[in-house]
Amino acid sequence: MRLIYGALHFRITNSYRSVHRRFQSSMTTQVNKSVHPFDKARLEALLNRRFFYAPAFEIYGGVAGLYDYGPPGSSLQANIIDQWRKHFIVEEGMLELDTTIMTPAPVFETSGHVARFADWMVKDSKTGDVLRADHLVKNVLEARLAGNLEARGVTAAPQDEKDKKKKKKGAKAAAVALEDGIVKEYETILAQLDNFSGPQLGELCRIHNIRNPDTDNEVGEPQQFNLMFTSSIGPTGQHPGYLRPETAQGHFLNFSRLLEYNNGRVPFASAQIGRSFRNEISPRAGLLRVREFTMAEIEHYVDPEDKNHGKFNEVRDVEIVLLDRHVQEAGGSETKKMKVGDAVDQGVIANQTLGYFVARIYQFLIKVGINPERLRFRQHMANEMAHYATDCWDAEIHNSTGWTECVGCADRAAYDLSVHTAKTGHPLIVRQALKEPIVTEKEAVEWNRKNLGKTFKQDAGSIQKTVESMDEAALVKLKSQLAQGSAVITSMDGKEFQLTPDILTIERKVFKQSIREFTPNVIEPSFGLGRILYTLLEHSFWSREQDVERGVLSLPPLVAPTKVLIVPLSARSEFDPLVLEVSTKLRRAGVFSRVDDSNTSIGKRYARNDELGTPYGVTIDFASVQNRTMTLRERDTMDQRIGSIDDVIATVTELVNGTIDWTEACQRLPVYDGVQAVD
Amino acid sequence: MRLIYGALHFRITNSYRSVHRRFQSSMTTQVNKSVHPFDKARLEALLNRRFFYAPAFEIYGGVAGLYDYGPPGSSLQANIIDQWRKHFIVEEGMLELDTTIMTPAPVFETSGHVARFADWMVKDSKTGDVLRADHLVKNVLEARLAGNLEARGVTAAPQDEKDKKKKKKGAKAAAVALEDGIVKEYETILAQLDNFSGPQLGELCRIHNIRNPDTDNEVGEPQQFNLMFTSSIGPTGQHPGYLRPETAQGHFLNFSRLLEYNNGRVPFASAQIGRSFRNEISPRAGLLRVREFTMAEIEHYVDPEDKNHGKFNEVRDVEIVLLDRHVQEAGGSETKKMKVGDAVDQGVIANQTLGYFVARIYQFLIKVGINPERLRFRQHMANEMAHYATDCWDAEIHNSTGWTECVGCADRAAYDLSVHTAKTGHPLIVRQALKEPIVTEKEAVEWNRKNLGKTFKQDAGSIQKTVESMDEAALVKLKSQLAQGSAVITSMDGKEFQLTPDILTIERKVFKQSIREFTPNVIEPSFGLGRILYTLLEHSFWSREQDVERGVLSLPPLVAPTKVLIVPLSARSEFDPLVLEVSTKLRRAGVFSRVDDSNTSIGKRYARNDELGTPYGVTIDFASVQNRTMTLRERDTMDQRIGSIDDVIATVTELVNGTIDWTEACQRLPVYDGVQAVD
Repeated sequence: MRLIYGALHFRITNSYRSVHRRFQSSMTTQVNKSVHPFDKARLEALLNRRFFYAPAFEIYGGVAGLYDYGPPGSSLQANIIDQWRKHFIVEEGMLELDTTIMTPAPVFETSGHVARFADWMVKDSKTGDVLRADHLVKNVLEARLAGNLEARGVTAAPQDEKDKKKKKKGAKAAAVALEDGIVKEYETILAQLDNFSGPQLGELCRIHNIRNPDTDNEVGEPQQFNLMFTSSIGPTGQHPGYLRPETAQGHFLNFSRLLEYNNGRVPFASAQIGRSFRNEISPRAGLLRVREFTMAEIEHYVDPEDKNHGKFNEVRDVEIVLLDRHVQEAGGSETKKMKVGDAVDQGVIANQTLGYFVARIYQFLIKVGINPERLRFRQHMANEMAHYATDCWDAEIHNSTGWTECVGCADRAAYDLSVHTAKTGHPLIVRQALKEPIVTEKEAVEWNRKNLGKTFKQDAGSIQKTVESMDEAALVKLKSQLAQGSAVITSMDGKEFQLTPDILTIERKVFKQSIREFTPNVIEPSFGLGRILYTLLEHSFWSREQDVERGVLSLPPLVAPTKVLIVPLSARSEFDPLVLEVSTKLRRAGVFSRVDDSNTSIGKRYARNDELGTPYGVTIDFASVQNRTMTLRERDTMDQRIGSIDDVIATVTELVNGTIDWTEACQRLPVYDGVQAVD
Repeated sequence: MRLIYGALHFRITNSYRSVHRRFQSSMTTQVNKSVHPFDKARLEALLNRRFFYAPAFEIYGGVAGLYDYGPPGSSLQANIIDQWRKHFIVEEGMLELDTTIMTPAPVFETSGHVARFADWMVKDSKTGDVLRADHLVKNVLEARLAGNLEARGVTAAPQDEKDKKKKKKGAKAAAVALEDGIVKEYETILAQLDNFSGPQLGELCRIHNIRNPDTDNEVGEPQQFNLMFTSSIGPTGQHPGYLRPETAQGHFLNFSRLLEYNNGRVPFASAQIGRSFRNEISPRAGLLRVREFTMAEIEHYVDPEDKNHGKFNEVRDVEIVLLDRHVQEAGGSETKKMKVGDAVDQGVIANQTLGYFVARIYQFLIKVGINPERLRFRQHMANEMAHYATDCWDAEIHNSTGWTECVGCADRAAYDLSVHTAKTGHPLIVRQALKEPIVTEKEAVEWNRKNLGKTFKQDAGSIQKTVESMDEAALVKLKSQLAQGSAVITSMDGKEFQLTPDILTIERKVFKQSIREFTPNVIEPSFGLGRILYTLLEHSFWSREQDVERGVLSLPPLVAPTKVLIVPLSARSEFDPLVLEVSTKLRRAGVFSRVDDSNTSIGKRYARNDELGTPYGVTIDFASVQNRTMTLRERDTMDQRIGSIDDVIATVTELVNGTIDWTEACQRLPVYDGVQAVD
């Protein structure tokens, strides 16, 4: 997760606002969604009220970082997963896996997670409360920068004002002006925050007098806290296990089987959607930082000598916003917009395969409804990146807390497959028949072992080692000396020995290699589905111009939990046959609908479904019974059209499938001007 | 899991064989799938070779009870889940949930899992090896019964012979004849096995000299082992947690939110598909007993006073095979075939809602490919059932290990919602506005608290309690005594007190109740998806008549991992455009296909896909390039037809969607009699 602070925040936010308007106005023609500023509290109340998600075990007081998804949240997540599966697994012919969460300890010892999958935590020196060290530094410095602006009388935009107030509450920032040098220093620290080690974070706390904002107490030295949940497998308690913090190891351990399934060929990819667990130190950011989450991971296996991608040309022209490591390492955060093709050609992105996935991630996020103007790809800085990775880009999505990493895309090189191979002795490699065998000529030594042993006894081994470690030139020299009768060599332990042709001969021979063995490199796009879901909800939320209390979630039909709401005028039984007919026909057309026949006005029912993000609604009333007509309502514009039941079903089916848009639907169905107001 | 033993086993198996043939012959006309007897080792080799699933962490030596699903297993599972979602969630308008796996301890303390979710284990008295007590008794007694048959020269069917050999290996059964009384006793024990408590299992081991078959050592007293995996939440280790052993509690804790989402109405159902964990003592039965598994659970909330179901008439005539509790409690296992309607009417199944779900479970299992002749519903015996449940039926599927519980369907009454309400004080209840308020008249007591306290001091409370616990008749009597001046009552602790009208008055009053509050009862269908998947694979497996090594998985197209295999004659680039065209058109038609252009004969590629259960294949060859024709192959019959590329795509799409069958397809497409043999 990256941060936004001070002046930069304002610039980005303002710039976002204007493009956000443009972005939305291209979707609908009449609706101004930006009349009311974004109000996080209002969104959260809506999500809670409509049970998108809620704190798990709420009636037991809840547990930080654990959330349950209710019906609309579950559907939204299922629809995002469905699109993910189509966009990646089906489209790219990936091999899907479903591996276990419970993992015996040796696997994570090998992978490095036991030693290194940790965050730095600090303890309040008096209360013993535990805080995450980097979050502490970030919150306190951001609050001081905000306090500085306040002291200098810089007016923040209303939205930011709210953010600031919230931060102030946590971090108790006083409106104190700071020297320009200090401001610069804080900004540089914040830009590089992900680059600091634990001891460095401790030093920052001492130098800048960073204390626990809740108590104003000093904090101790940062200590590592491993984020994996522990357990033990079997009745004897002898087999320690961990809950996986990512699905990746399950892919790697099955590499040989996957390769065989793929007829021995690379490149190919495995994919997995599943639950992972991280025992976060002190999660307080809603769905953005949780202890249990659904992720979707791809491991794409490539020849380390050829990281080009066969479909790269298809994404060459995709334009993305990049924040590269050099800018960050210099303390900045200026982004640039580039075509993926140019980024790879210019070496900004390390290789085509990495670039291909960056572009495909971009396309996926836009497809499910993320605002492209609030999406950037941030490159990891040198210290931030896992030691084995060669390049790593995070898809960051802007939201009310700043920029949040939602997808990581790393070139993990051969690290994982190599360490598991070394540990288990099971070769996780590719054996490739060479089209043309590689033919090499070199000097080959042949020993007369009998004579060697008889002549040199216990020194025989040392002599053999010495000769066999010689390079080509040395062997040629030795060969010519032997041709002249004898040669003197110096063994590794400094002794001299005289060798003769009855001990060894050296001959030039031809070697033919027809199989190439290599450990593939792995490009890993890794998606945090809960973070995507939450930022999507923020991007989709707005309030009706006429009433700020009337919230709407403009979720794209592709991912909306319910596509069509069926609203009978009342629960009277005379509407039942038509309700059944419409819902059955929609189901057959593959359109998910729900009936709302609750005992309240049609307007209230539509308002409730605006909050649920339902894009279309059809009303069944007395005219429907008499004339077999039905009205069709569009969520964002509240436009209503009318047509025969079958025409409306056909039109809404096309709308949901994305083959027509609302403008086109309006050309097919006349406007509804019935006397009966439904909104 | 239930067992099959001795003579009964043979009867069922033989009876199964004949109906199995009938069942299969109705599907295809020309293929005899029963030429070769079922061979479990051959199936397991196939599933391993094709990576349907494999032991997790295999290269680290594996961990018992943990399995990874490879590409075909993942797809098969995803397709079964997809059908489940359509059959239950969409069809019945259920509310889907996605709740957390990690659960704080208090939840499972309340639910009773901490105290009772345990199996009985025994320890080998010398090696300390741990065995599950009921499995030990079962295995040893079954082996003795098998040894008895062998000693008496009863020849078993080949399939059973193999089973027996396997069992013998584990349980070291000698071919020893048993007295008829002993055989009867063993059979009775086995039929009632699920009914025994831990101490009873210990007594059985002593009486019948049951020892650890691996070592022949005695075993100790059965001890309870809790099956929940433990962990701890947060950095301080202060919050113990468990991995859920079922998804159900996540439903119950959210009941109030779900009810509100459903506009306050019952009946309704919540549904959840997700991972659960059970730390099994010694899992050795492949996918049938695992430590981590995907389950699908429904919690259907009903008015305890009305367990009828609105759609019960739709399933009235569904015929199912039942094994009721009375038969089992008498030591038998005779089943009877009944219509669900009759079973409910005759009180065999407790109520309509339970009966409705039993029928829907039956329909679902048949739809995904379970052989109806190997499916029965077994009722829980009195001791076996959770103490709170009122009735429970397991859908058991017959397989090479006997009858295995794959779905449970229980009426859990109001237990869960009540205990969480009592613990948290959060009322998990339904409040229903009564159409007609209930008007009752009764005697109401009014105290003069001042006089009461003054007169009776410390006895006041006891007197109040005594009077207020009186029934209507007692109150009427007291009232008439008071009307005469005074009354003497005896308090609960035996003291006598004289009451007068200045202490209390009793008057007949009218009470009006317009809201009814009740805790709904819960009907819970709970599906073990891995068990369904494995038994489906057994039911689908057979070998070609001409070659026992050529295995086929006759998975229904609905759930088959890949629907259509695209086979270009070779990987030559001239076929590429057609391969792309066909795969794109199939994808647009919603049909999942895979291309196999590996460097081997078409026959071998088809054989590999027979093992993967791919129902249809199309071949692209030179004729396709010249004439735009394509052949279509059906997996079971190996029939090949030919037609234009578009006709074949249209036909295979209908085949996959189930709108036509192969017979009809053959009427549309002529037989392929090309010179080029493809099988």
